[in-house]
Amino acid sequence: MRLDHVGIAVKDVGAAKGIFQHLFGLPLDLERTVPDQGVKVVKLCSGESSCEFLEPTGPDTPVGRFLAKGNGPLHHICFAVPDIKAALADMKRKGARLIDETPRIGAAGLPIAFLHPDSCGGVLVEFVEKP
Amino acid sequence: MRLDHVGIAVKDVGAAKGIFQHLFGLPLDLERTVPDQGVKVVKLCSGESSCEFLEPTGPDTPVGRFLAKGNGPLHHICFAVPDIKAALADMKRKGARLIDETPRIGAAGLPIAFLHPDSCGGVLVEFVEKP
Repeated sequence: MRLDHVGIAVKDVGAAKGIFQHLFGLPLDLERTVPDQGVKVVKLCSGESSCEFLEPTGPDTPVGRFLAKGNGPLHHICFAVPDIKAALADMKRKGARLIDETPRIGAAGLPIAFLHPDSCGGVLVEFVEKP
Repeated sequence: MRLDHVGIAVKDVGAAKGIFQHLFGLPLDLERTVPDQGVKVVKLCSGESSCEFLEPTGPDTPVGRFLAKGNGPLHHICFAVPDIKAALADMKRKGARLIDETPRIGAAGLPIAFLHPDSCGGVLVEFVEKP
């Protein structure tokens, strides 16, 4: 499994984008608000992986609650898988707890799903389908 | 700049290795104790990047203090750079605060240096020299 991106929770994706482009010259991949998931997303390319900055659209959102607890800024890691339904079935067979039993559509328009941190040594792990 | 790895602070690198190899089948890259830095390191390959698990060798170490504050488990991100001295000079020119003014040798035997999170939107950023 290939590391696709690192999710980074911030108060202001515009500020984070400015800093990471100024210091590291990372090119912009996508910039979008995903109302369902309560986040503004800015993704910056970094080799075959990317840095995904997430700004909550309000306090009562998953990323808003994460930041309010004083967590962060690093939020999750995401692996690219060729077939997300097969990958989730494999995780269940191996005893992992899933947050998303069925995939949903992420900011880039691709199927995504999260595994529960309790099954992954405390790490919030996402899958994205990239055939 | 290419994302080289994600650093993940855990209480037990053996347990984390077991979980990530069982669930995701990530191959072992290196396993080593670095007494200077107060960590046991297990690195698992994930495409061109890797997951670097860090277990503190004691409570009074950087990773031990990080975990004791209830932080984590995601700890830092690392970019590969072709010339670390040039990269650090570039960061200083751009106004970034450095933790390591001069590179030191990391777990894999390569020059590394950390930037201060205050300059990177709260993210602890490492460079590793990979010419």
